[in-house]
Amino acid sequence: MNNIFLKNIGLIDGSKANIRIADGKIKKIAPCGKDLTPEAGEEVVDCNRKVAVPGFINMHTHAAMTLMRGVGEDMRLEEWLDHIWAIEAKLDAPFIYWGTKVACLEMIKTGTTTFNDQYWFSPSAHLAASEMGVRDAVSYVFLDHFKPEEAQRQKEQCIQMHETVKGWDARSIFTIGIHAVYTNSEKTILWATEYARKHGLKIHIHVGESEKEDLDCKAAHGGLSPVEYLDSLGVLGPDVIAAHTLWISEKDIEILGKRHVNCVHNINSNTKLSSGYKFKWKELSDAGANVCIGTDGCASSNNLDILEAMKTTALFQKAWRKDPSEMPLPKLLEMATINGAKAFGLRTGLIKEGYDADIQIIDTDSSFFLSPAPFLANFIYSAHSDSVSSLISGGKFVMRGRNVVGEKEILKGARTVLNEIILR
Amino acid sequence: MNNIFLKNIGLIDGSKANIRIADGKIKKIAPCGKDLTPEAGEEVVDCNRKVAVPGFINMHTHAAMTLMRGVGEDMRLEEWLDHIWAIEAKLDAPFIYWGTKVACLEMIKTGTTTFNDQYWFSPSAHLAASEMGVRDAVSYVFLDHFKPEEAQRQKEQCIQMHETVKGWDARSIFTIGIHAVYTNSEKTILWATEYARKHGLKIHIHVGESEKEDLDCKAAHGGLSPVEYLDSLGVLGPDVIAAHTLWISEKDIEILGKRHVNCVHNINSNTKLSSGYKFKWKELSDAGANVCIGTDGCASSNNLDILEAMKTTALFQKAWRKDPSEMPLPKLLEMATINGAKAFGLRTGLIKEGYDADIQIIDTDSSFFLSPAPFLANFIYSAHSDSVSSLISGGKFVMRGRNVVGEKEILKGARTVLNEIILR
Repeated sequence: MNNIFLKNIGLIDGSKANIRIADGKIKKIAPCGKDLTPEAGEEVVDCNRKVAVPGFINMHTHAAMTLMRGVGEDMRLEEWLDHIWAIEAKLDAPFIYWGTKVACLEMIKTGTTTFNDQYWFSPSAHLAASEMGVRDAVSYVFLDHFKPEEAQRQKEQCIQMHETVKGWDARSIFTIGIHAVYTNSEKTILWATEYARKHGLKIHIHVGESEKEDLDCKAAHGGLSPVEYLDSLGVLGPDVIAAHTLWISEKDIEILGKRHVNCVHNINSNTKLSSGYKFKWKELSDAGANVCIGTDGCASSNNLDILEAMKTTALFQKAWRKDPSEMPLPKLLEMATINGAKAFGLRTGLIKEGYDADIQIIDTDSSFFLSPAPFLANFIYSAHSDSVSSLISGGKFVMRGRNVVGEKEILKGARTVLNEIILR
Repeated sequence: MNNIFLKNIGLIDGSKANIRIADGKIKKIAPCGKDLTPEAGEEVVDCNRKVAVPGFINMHTHAAMTLMRGVGEDMRLEEWLDHIWAIEAKLDAPFIYWGTKVACLEMIKTGTTTFNDQYWFSPSAHLAASEMGVRDAVSYVFLDHFKPEEAQRQKEQCIQMHETVKGWDARSIFTIGIHAVYTNSEKTILWATEYARKHGLKIHIHVGESEKEDLDCKAAHGGLSPVEYLDSLGVLGPDVIAAHTLWISEKDIEILGKRHVNCVHNINSNTKLSSGYKFKWKELSDAGANVCIGTDGCASSNNLDILEAMKTTALFQKAWRKDPSEMPLPKLLEMATINGAKAFGLRTGLIKEGYDADIQIIDTDSSFFLSPAPFLANFIYSAHSDSVSSLISGGKFVMRGRNVVGEKEILKGARTVLNEIILR
């Protein structure tokens, strides 16, 4: 792998720098005109009117569902799940492989370099992500529907999949997925949690996504909310990535904060399914939780565009809190970058020496960046994700000038599996 | 002007057709394989994997404010207006010209062929739009701040500008702008309305944008809301384009319906300024109003992307009404196309024989359109506006393959006036 030298690139604070990338890392950053010059054999990239932004970290998605868009449009979560589960019964490894390839294609084009997945046939998802050069955190997902024989089968599959993982490249992450409290028996939740802790794996779970989940949990577990119930089982901790945490009480916020849970907001999914929108990012942060952003899967959200999700998040926060100063943009950027890195203990999510070279190169030579407003305001409020002109992931270009290698073949492969699974 | 022959183009309903465009109109549409073949001298455009969508009609904007992005980020309407008015005191014709050029560039790139503007130095705005090939409805704006001498000056200016308009091309529209009830004396509102009716001009006015406007109006006018007050003056009718109509009572809805007012929803602006989000599109439609979509100006919203505004509108409607079936996509498309045409009495906003050839050509050869879902779901929920590959406005290509003639010169011109007005 050749070194990359980003020459004269803008930083978010408005300054300019030269950046050396080597061995997948940001080796050196120096203000323009200071010391740092290209060395022999380095690829020098002229970054005039370009700005470096950390690659986005999509903290909750179901990548292969990118091929399941539109199978349940305009439905509430519970009805939608019935449609989804009917299709999921037919899924196979090629569907997951091509679905994840398409997802990675879209994530690359919108500036994402790491995604936290929760879906089926994870080795196929990992293979796809790995080929595309995007860092994946894939999971084994527990969803036993309260059937003991299913639980037993899943435990065995989980152990088996965990074995497979040992041959994967160092950049990928394996997590334990627990779908939700309403789809798993207490025994399975406890077993999966213990397994994760024993092996130092993160736990990825849906928590407090809808009012129905909240009410059903209280009815089933002596008045305990999903957060309270999970905490009573000892599940919650800094190794837990909790998707949604939307229907939560003040007491739930206190628990999520005290346990330093990673809470992932998915505004497009929550609003499209009419689950809700009053996400308590500030209250959760203040209490001690680590708040991140995700897109959820494309069957609900309907795309993987983190920049779009950031703008939508800001608009909903300003709207329901009735305060236009709500959702400061630097906080929003943290939620989409460094906070995801913190959840996984990764050295990425910042443009900083020693950090992984996961870098979006934003083309500011367009009308969206004419304004003297801070870069983040123009980027998040005005521009679209096609301002991401190139993307470096793990020190390698995965997109150059909007071109991703193999795009046509990916669409072709996707059409084939769509015909076999969804359309027949 | 050569005829254009769109060969084998998809329609929104999933069928395919050949389309002949001549003299600025859609001359003929025929299903593929039926009769219609290219004639000598026609430009034949192969539209494999392309879909024709009516050009969007942006029913409320302040186009030149595209150069005022970021001058008042994250503020409430009233505070924001103070910032804006301080800059507007310095504006000149070149600023409006280049600001509108930039706005047209962005509108073309996001599929808009007609925009309803309310801003200053309208002849400069019209010149810019006309050069860009986008249909403009520009206004003379009344904003007398309750000063009689200012009102007198504005009446004279209005009459003078109306004279200028007579030399403009037939596609452009001149309207009478009344900024709002809180910025104009009753006398001025009455004079402007009478002038508009005498000359058959539409009236473009802000109504019910914020709670403060509502409360202040009630305090000033014996408990009448802005809608009730305007109706008591005889202002409201089918020739009125009312931007926002967000803070409205059931009685206001009844009035707006009975008077067949054109009500324009601007979700991004309303939420970014924390003005509100519970827009009553359905109640207004049912009552008899004509509901449209706009972006508002970029200083508040912050872009002119109608497709983004459509998705955001759908998400907010699903969210606050707690019903995922809310905001049917065909209705949303009507609000962004044909309803705007109805407001102006134009034969555009549909892909239909005899209608103006204002056509977006959508490239569906991307992952966003793989799904078997209806085209509109993929287009509005999943895709971005860069799916608009080419745009025909008034029978002429104003964008081909994402290229707009003169883009670099427009950015250069814009930077010059920005330096002179905003940055100095």
